[in-house]
Amino acid sequence: MASPKYLTGDKPGIDAFIDQFDTFLFDCDGVLWSGDHLFPHVPETIDMLRKRGKQLVFVTNNSTKSRSDYKKKFDKVGITANEEEVFGSSYSAAIYISRIMKLQAPKNKVFVLGETGVEQELASEGIPFLGGTDEKLRREMNDDDFKNLANGSALDPDVAVVLTGLDFHPSYLKYSLGFAYIRKGAHFLATNIDSTLPNAGSLFPGAGSISAPLVEAAGRPPLALGKPSQAMMDAIEGKFKFDRKKACMVGDRLNTDIQFGIEGGLGGTLAVLTGVSKKEDFLAEGAKVVPSAYVDQLGDLVG
Amino acid sequence: MASPKYLTGDKPGIDAFIDQFDTFLFDCDGVLWSGDHLFPHVPETIDMLRKRGKQLVFVTNNSTKSRSDYKKKFDKVGITANEEEVFGSSYSAAIYISRIMKLQAPKNKVFVLGETGVEQELASEGIPFLGGTDEKLRREMNDDDFKNLANGSALDPDVAVVLTGLDFHPSYLKYSLGFAYIRKGAHFLATNIDSTLPNAGSLFPGAGSISAPLVEAAGRPPLALGKPSQAMMDAIEGKFKFDRKKACMVGDRLNTDIQFGIEGGLGGTLAVLTGVSKKEDFLAEGAKVVPSAYVDQLGDLVG
Repeated sequence: MASPKYLTGDKPGIDAFIDQFDTFLFDCDGVLWSGDHLFPHVPETIDMLRKRGKQLVFVTNNSTKSRSDYKKKFDKVGITANEEEVFGSSYSAAIYISRIMKLQAPKNKVFVLGETGVEQELASEGIPFLGGTDEKLRREMNDDDFKNLANGSALDPDVAVVLTGLDFHPSYLKYSLGFAYIRKGAHFLATNIDSTLPNAGSLFPGAGSISAPLVEAAGRPPLALGKPSQAMMDAIEGKFKFDRKKACMVGDRLNTDIQFGIEGGLGGTLAVLTGVSKKEDFLAEGAKVVPSAYVDQLGDLVG
Repeated sequence: MASPKYLTGDKPGIDAFIDQFDTFLFDCDGVLWSGDHLFPHVPETIDMLRKRGKQLVFVTNNSTKSRSDYKKKFDKVGITANEEEVFGSSYSAAIYISRIMKLQAPKNKVFVLGETGVEQELASEGIPFLGGTDEKLRREMNDDDFKNLANGSALDPDVAVVLTGLDFHPSYLKYSLGFAYIRKGAHFLATNIDSTLPNAGSLFPGAGSISAPLVEAAGRPPLALGKPSQAMMDAIEGKFKFDRKKACMVGDRLNTDIQFGIEGGLGGTLAVLTGVSKKEDFLAEGAKVVPSAYVDQLGDLVG
């Protein structure tokens, strides 16, 4: 496999690299910002790409935020972007359910383990849902719950899908409900299965960890609709209609972002070193996932 | 592998089988009872074995109940037993921590994901603990929690072990605390890793499912102290001093109870068909876990 080209400080190299592509897909956290900290020269880099006529898509596995939540974040940190350019894993899951599964009402309800991001995107596609942020499900299980879940009377017969994202309010009742629906034959989907969530300079349990009780109890994994699942790439291509050979994925994680671009057959991938993966990870002998090029930080493209 | 002997209705066969053993280890749920339903002739079977001078041990993976809780259950359903004959996975874990790990105070605290059964057994061995049923940990995570977990100020520096059992009150805060302690180097133990919990004639998430977020986030499994882990057999032998060749494990689950007895080198195993496994499971060609003998129900031994 060819070595990745190091572009920081190489203006002609940067220009030649950018000229190869019509479309740039960006991971957000670890690329544009870390939490509330915006990386240097990111707004200028985005503006430069827009001026050169590039199509931009912001692709995030964060399931807790909807596209409109993301738009607010872009506005707050000062990056020019519109809601339609954002493609999150919750939206990816909603599109998959509405446009690919095409379930017929009324047997099209989704039981959600997740936060408002999932709910808003399901609503935007007109998909009925239950669970999610319903505070009534944060209570203790009692003997009647056990009985009514066992005999099925506590279950909605129209639930066809269990969709798990990152839920900051897990409960034994929610897990029991999700498990009962899966046992009754519901499709099992996940917005994403990242095991950890970077925050405050440390790691916390991610969507893949918080949904693990359902995976363990059911004895099978969900279909994941976030990176690096190619179901997400298909959904992005379906919406944005770009030429994969003229598209580049930009990200900080080899095993999600860069792998996502390579497996999707994109023309190129660009790694940044402001997030999870280190250059040693892809420069090492025998590295499995290697980007086409890398920069120390995204802003080096205008640096 | 020899076919298991079917003993129901075979009085001479039953007598010969019982005579081989001095000690009987019993699984409880699915063998003696199911929930609050006592199976027929169980008290008489237990009394018969006592009259014949057998040593009895009740071995359960249920981590939510302590030995004294179990004693109350035996009294309630009318089976003669004393607390010292009960050996649960919480007690097994407490013994492992106090007598095998032998951690030195003050660096011997245990962070618990579990219920009072775990706490009572840790207390009985004099092990300090936190987490568990502490209601303050059932609340929402806030930004300060993220920050204080990341910088370590929310962590007790004396925690040396994270012990997970079945917790009916999981929270993102508890999972984040457990994960943070594991990342800081705490030993990772589980009372048991049963993926499901039978209740009300159905299945619910078990200890192995509720602890799965920590396994997924940490990227490694805990040391499990319940069946079929041989750490539990060693602890039982250490306490009850029996001859393995003259001992028989009685249970309803092939992949926990029967496997536990076979891997422990016991003289025999007896399957009952009142629980999870069916006779087809061990009579099938190529079955991997096969008991020495089986009865339709435990009470058939006096039937």
